[in-house]
Amino acid sequence: MAKSRGVAMLVGAGDAIGAAVARRFAKGGYTVCIGRRDAAKSQALVDELKAEGHGIHAFSVDARQEAEVQKLFADVEQNIGPIEVCLFNAGSNVNKPLLDTTEKLFFKAWELACFAGFLVGREAARVMLPRGRGTIFFTGATASVRGGLGFAAFSSAKFGLRAVAQAMARELGPKNIHVTHLIIDAGVDSEAIHQRMKAARGIEASDIPPDSLTKTSSIAEAYWFAHQQTRDGWTHELDLRPSVEKW
Amino acid sequence: MAKSRGVAMLVGAGDAIGAAVARRFAKGGYTVCIGRRDAAKSQALVDELKAEGHGIHAFSVDARQEAEVQKLFADVEQNIGPIEVCLFNAGSNVNKPLLDTTEKLFFKAWELACFAGFLVGREAARVMLPRGRGTIFFTGATASVRGGLGFAAFSSAKFGLRAVAQAMARELGPKNIHVTHLIIDAGVDSEAIHQRMKAARGIEASDIPPDSLTKTSSIAEAYWFAHQQTRDGWTHELDLRPSVEKW
Amino acid sequence: MAKSRGVAMLVGAGDAIGAAVARRFAKGGYTVCIGRRDAAKSQALVDELKAEGHGIHAFSVDARQEAEVQKLFADVEQNIGPIEVCLFNAGSNVNKPLLDTTEKLFFKAWELACFAGFLVGREAARVMLPRGRGTIFFTGATASVRGGLGFAAFSSAKFGLRAVAQAMARELGPKNIHVTHLIIDAGVDSEAIHQRMKAARGIEASDIPPDSLTKTSSIAEAYWFAHQQTRDGWTHELDLRPSVEKW
Amino acid sequence: MAKSRGVAMLVGAGDAIGAAVARRFAKGGYTVCIGRRDAAKSQALVDELKAEGHGIHAFSVDARQEAEVQKLFADVEQNIGPIEVCLFNAGSNVNKPLLDTTEKLFFKAWELACFAGFLVGREAARVMLPRGRGTIFFTGATASVRGGLGFAAFSSAKFGLRAVAQAMARELGPKNIHVTHLIIDAGVDSEAIHQRMKAARGIEASDIPPDSLTKTSSIAEAYWFAHQQTRDGWTHELDLRPSVEKW
Repeated sequence: MAKSRGVAMLVGAGDAIGAAVARRFAKGGYTVCIGRRDAAKSQALVDELKAEGHGIHAFSVDARQEAEVQKLFADVEQNIGPIEVCLFNAGSNVNKPLLDTTEKLFFKAWELACFAGFLVGREAARVMLPRGRGTIFFTGATASVRGGLGFAAFSSAKFGLRAVAQAMARELGPKNIHVTHLIIDAGVDSEAIHQRMKAARGIEASDIPPDSLTKTSSIAEAYWFAHQQTRDGWTHELDLRPSVEKW
Repeated sequence: MAKSRGVAMLVGAGDAIGAAVARRFAKGGYTVCIGRRDAAKSQALVDELKAEGHGIHAFSVDARQEAEVQKLFADVEQNIGPIEVCLFNAGSNVNKPLLDTTEKLFFKAWELACFAGFLVGREAARVMLPRGRGTIFFTGATASVRGGLGFAAFSSAKFGLRAVAQAMARELGPKNIHVTHLIIDAGVDSEAIHQRMKAARGIEASDIPPDSLTKTSSIAEAYWFAHQQTRDGWTHELDLRPSVEKW
Repeated sequence: MAKSRGVAMLVGAGDAIGAAVARRFAKGGYTVCIGRRDAAKSQALVDELKAEGHGIHAFSVDARQEAEVQKLFADVEQNIGPIEVCLFNAGSNVNKPLLDTTEKLFFKAWELACFAGFLVGREAARVMLPRGRGTIFFTGATASVRGGLGFAAFSSAKFGLRAVAQAMARELGPKNIHVTHLIIDAGVDSEAIHQRMKAARGIEASDIPPDSLTKTSSIAEAYWFAHQQTRDGWTHELDLRPSVEKW
Repeated sequence: MAKSRGVAMLVGAGDAIGAAVARRFAKGGYTVCIGRRDAAKSQALVDELKAEGHGIHAFSVDARQEAEVQKLFADVEQNIGPIEVCLFNAGSNVNKPLLDTTEKLFFKAWELACFAGFLVGREAARVMLPRGRGTIFFTGATASVRGGLGFAAFSSAKFGLRAVAQAMARELGPKNIHVTHLIIDAGVDSEAIHQRMKAARGIEASDIPPDSLTKTSSIAEAYWFAHQQTRDGWTHELDLRPSVEKW
């Protein structure tokens, strides 16, 4: 195994975007640390990347718990290596009429998509600032810039996360920490969406028009691109959507 | 006392914007209901408006508590009159470096400026929808559209509130409920800011250049304007700033 | 006739928005000056407002010609009164596939909706600056903030006009000249749109759902509101759309 | 020389951004065609890239003249190869008080930064559409999204160009033509800016803090990234600024 370029810490990293970013940054020389509710779910990915000779570790973490996030970052820094890249990717799309949006639902949407993002971003900054370098990524969505019908809870959380990313970029940029907010204005090509499309509209995965959903590998490449940028020219925000998307 | 045109329910209505909106809507024929942490603080305003022959009531409410908000709306609807106008005006500006932004601070900024706004807006919609009419106002700020340095917590909450306002406008507009988000891109001319400017920069209120802070009466007029609009042409979002403001 | 409060100069003021703004500002005490391609077309409006005792004058002007705009402003200032309010309202919606968008069409869309707006705004500023007061209005559209399919020409012109309004607001605000950009995100209830809807979709005016188009009087009220604002709290941009509009 | 992957047509491609993009796309396997006012000025670049074995051609063109743009595209398509990538990069920053912004200046800013961009983009689309593929780039600036003080002319043109890019993206995306608008929110590290900083503020190039201006090579990499994207996930807009930039 070649010397690691450091750790890429991926929080809220599931089998779709998370796994793709893991593969991309492993290939790029980073030791990958996955943080998700249930680390066991990443076992196949861990096996796959290890088999290819990459360093990869999976941790169970509830990213909404400050103490758990802090413990995770401390563990990784002490036992694995310096966190050079941190992705926050959690958040769960939800669409409800306003009157059916319970306080619990509103809170949970925010807690997962926004509050956890703040915690993860802040703890990443805490370990990166003394080293004077690092990259922090936040995954956004259409709902990050548009409060659509039925999206009071989800868009409120995603708007809030975007504000965190902006405030962090303005504070951390001059300290050589690159903060990027990626707006995925599309469905993501994943098992989850296939199941949803089948359940909602009876559409088989094989019937989905090719390239009409954004591939997780394309998302990973966008993050890799941002990470490769030199500090004279950093991208803070970029969008991503299929060529056929209406917008 | 002339027949009331219904209730203007003002939540998070303090002595600055809240009092000005109270005066404007009282003058416009509405019975004013103030909801704030400590109703006693509105006594002078209550006395003033009553002396002028207006209907006004003040309620102590913690707008972050669903049960309290629901109780307030039920009380007002049953005992005072139909809520035709609802303003959500709470939120407390805070500026902190990222690493000093505790989870408590982040949560509290959101709970007050965003979560309470969702609760109040939703409960307003709940009583307005069966009547097929109403106006709901949200007070925004520069931080609603810009994640400035040091504003991770506050701008996250204000971005989130803006998303709530958008989603509500899209859902409720066709049902004849007008939702307006007012972006105050300025300091508000209030006792609080005078004290802050004196503490921070030694500036006496008498030394503040005239018209360099937005008067609360101007904010009240903007809300009154929006409320007067006919449903063929509603404003969802407008900004407000002093002529001399840099932006 | 009561003493005039000065001149409201309305350029690109046709029988829809222009006439409504003329009525509103006449009622508000302003002498109205209409500037349009063919002044004769405003004869009925002139007769109407004169019969009500208002001061009103119509001028033929090609607002795309600097010399004509300058002559108009000089004439009005010398012979009628000080221009206290100026509205630029010209612009002609056009939707074409990109390859059918000729250079002539692109130029003409810009010349009318953007270049003429710059000329009119600048000349208004020229007469207002020495007096240290004034209000300048620009009519925007959905196309001011969205480059929609088929709108390369029109949205390019409207985006461009919005930039003019912003730059003017930033420069002129501190000099007590209020610049407002009104985004009409809707169809405007006018003879022209009725004819278009009939031609395109066979819809009779009587079949158009009430309040589904924005009334010109609502637009006029929005401008009147902005003009009434005191300089401690000016609105630079606001939107306007029917309650039933999808957006 | 390896087989060319087709032509990268760079219009308004000077010695700064233009040359960097030329180098990047030449390295990536494209035959580069430069279109600028005076092709002779690219002689050094042509010599440099030819010496490295790349295909490169420079053409004199006034991109504001439809006939010249059409002739250029026809020549290149017939004699050199299919245009697979097209960059429009012209535009000349100008800052003037409103009253000093002559109609000539306003027109020229628009003609160069917006109208020429429309012509170039449209002609690129014309040759790409029958092949069902291609990439079109537009260089934006801070002034593309902010009408700053003194920027009535320049920001109007850049806003207008952004609208063209959006409308084109919406129309051409589904036809497999990728349109990207890059917002450079920074000074570009170039001879021109060095001279301007010296003239305006006496700053020697050697005194400019490292990485405080965006390098042309970083801009070129951003374009290369966008061009490499697969059609399931295209970026339409991204920003670029130095880490130390205030924004």
